[in-house]
Amino acid sequence: MTPRFTFTRRIQFSDTDMAGIVHFANFYRFMEEAEHEMFRSLGFKIVEDQPDGSVVGWPRVRASCNFEAPAYYDDLIEIDIFIMRVGVKSLTMTFHFRRGKQRLATGELKTVFCQFSRDGKFTSIEIPAAQRQTFEEGTTGKPA
Amino acid sequence: MTPRFTFTRRIQFSDTDMAGIVHFANFYRFMEEAEHEMFRSLGFKIVEDQPDGSVVGWPRVRASCNFEAPAYYDDLIEIDIFIMRVGVKSLTMTFHFRRGKQRLATGELKTVFCQFSRDGKFTSIEIPAAQRQTFEEGTTGKPA
Amino acid sequence: MTPRFTFTRRIQFSDTDMAGIVHFANFYRFMEEAEHEMFRSLGFKIVEDQPDGSVVGWPRVRASCNFEAPAYYDDLIEIDIFIMRVGVKSLTMTFHFRRGKQRLATGELKTVFCQFSRDGKFTSIEIPAAQRQTFEEGTTGKPA
Amino acid sequence: MTPRFTFTRRIQFSDTDMAGIVHFANFYRFMEEAEHEMFRSLGFKIVEDQPDGSVVGWPRVRASCNFEAPAYYDDLIEIDIFIMRVGVKSLTMTFHFRRGKQRLATGELKTVFCQFSRDGKFTSIEIPAAQRQTFEEGTTGKPA
Repeated sequence: MTPRFTFTRRIQFSDTDMAGIVHFANFYRFMEEAEHEMFRSLGFKIVEDQPDGSVVGWPRVRASCNFEAPAYYDDLIEIDIFIMRVGVKSLTMTFHFRRGKQRLATGELKTVFCQFSRDGKFTSIEIPAAQRQTFEEGTTGKPA
Repeated sequence: MTPRFTFTRRIQFSDTDMAGIVHFANFYRFMEEAEHEMFRSLGFKIVEDQPDGSVVGWPRVRASCNFEAPAYYDDLIEIDIFIMRVGVKSLTMTFHFRRGKQRLATGELKTVFCQFSRDGKFTSIEIPAAQRQTFEEGTTGKPA
Repeated sequence: MTPRFTFTRRIQFSDTDMAGIVHFANFYRFMEEAEHEMFRSLGFKIVEDQPDGSVVGWPRVRASCNFEAPAYYDDLIEIDIFIMRVGVKSLTMTFHFRRGKQRLATGELKTVFCQFSRDGKFTSIEIPAAQRQTFEEGTTGKPA
Repeated sequence: MTPRFTFTRRIQFSDTDMAGIVHFANFYRFMEEAEHEMFRSLGFKIVEDQPDGSVVGWPRVRASCNFEAPAYYDDLIEIDIFIMRVGVKSLTMTFHFRRGKQRLATGELKTVFCQFSRDGKFTSIEIPAAQRQTFEEGTTGKPA
């Protein structure tokens, strides 16, 4: 199965902790960086001002990660993204973290398209049809 | 069901993002802060130098979180910890994030007792019996 | 000389890096946490919605820190804040980081009172007279 | 004056805060990322295991930053590094943050070559002559 997008990232010193490895919470930031770069590659924005003055974005509903092997400072890791499901208002993606061929972790992110008001409150809305279609073209079955 | 431990935390400005809410990756750091404070309250250390010069610690195997409502700057949130399972080498905990009575998120963390060498490599080892017993005393069935 | 405010903070695991010490960039977050707690103690808010729909806040103009000794995981550090100068639109504070009596670092923060528009743009404005007076009461000469 | 090295970085969502701009503490992480990329480009490592089992690295003595204009999500910023002074044991660099031609911030970092023991303690040592010479070739007077 072919990933929809692959993102390469250098592990930074500040990503590590006193155990000498990448702190686990940073894997969620890495998923987000990969997701946003995929959005850019598809011509989409993660945050967008609307004509009516509101803002639309993609808050998270669920995020999980299984950690298989540590990542270290200076590593160039690759993150393969698979689009698993495109819902009316939501998007579910799987992320495979690799250093070369070695699997480091596998994550999943479910995110929902929402309209934000200024005070940080938000309501889910339908993903525009054209954007949903683009995501669906890349939708795959469960990665092996 | 009674939580094994409740941790209170002030949401800091740097925990927020441009959507005006706590960035989702920070909930994993909050789980860890709560877990470590529970360890302190039980007289345990998360990282401990051993007589033979090695170090023992608790790297993560899996972490997940479901986000139900956003947390905002200045919020005083409470995190209830439930010990779900004490394995021979692992510990599984559930975390309920609340602002007052409002549920914000529910997370789970599976962490494994390990011996670290200096270069960041590690091997899982058995949790000392006394420590396992202390954890088991607080083990609960699935929280409602 | 007496500090205007003292803030106590537990060093968290995620504050450390692979050198086994607190990553230097985190000292700036700690200064901010101490500053915000001082604001709370004085009855002030760091971010405040205005009747006209705008928001006021305190972006930074300059921040510096001298690092004298490392901070470690689990340390309970204390941060003494001294208000050095209250300008018409700005506030300058010095921060002394201590572990018990041992000095760890000394930082300075200059921050400016500003009005924010929704798009992240902002303009400096005068600090309300009552707030400026409160800060001035605690203004000190150069700490030794 | 020509910078010794220029580093390009995409501003990530998690770099922002609720004011809609990059949180000021992240500029120090960006300086470090630029510095480390310059080290890589010169064939040097920031952290290096020694034959005797110790580790050498570069803890910070001082870091400062003046903030002139905010950076926003999705910005591609450039960071010019100027090597200001090469001491026997220390290195002082200036960093100019730009978005295109617009100056965003100017930072300075003084860092000291040190030998680390396992427990996070360290002592300053002399920078190897060859490395010092490489740095000196790129040393400049005060940037305009």
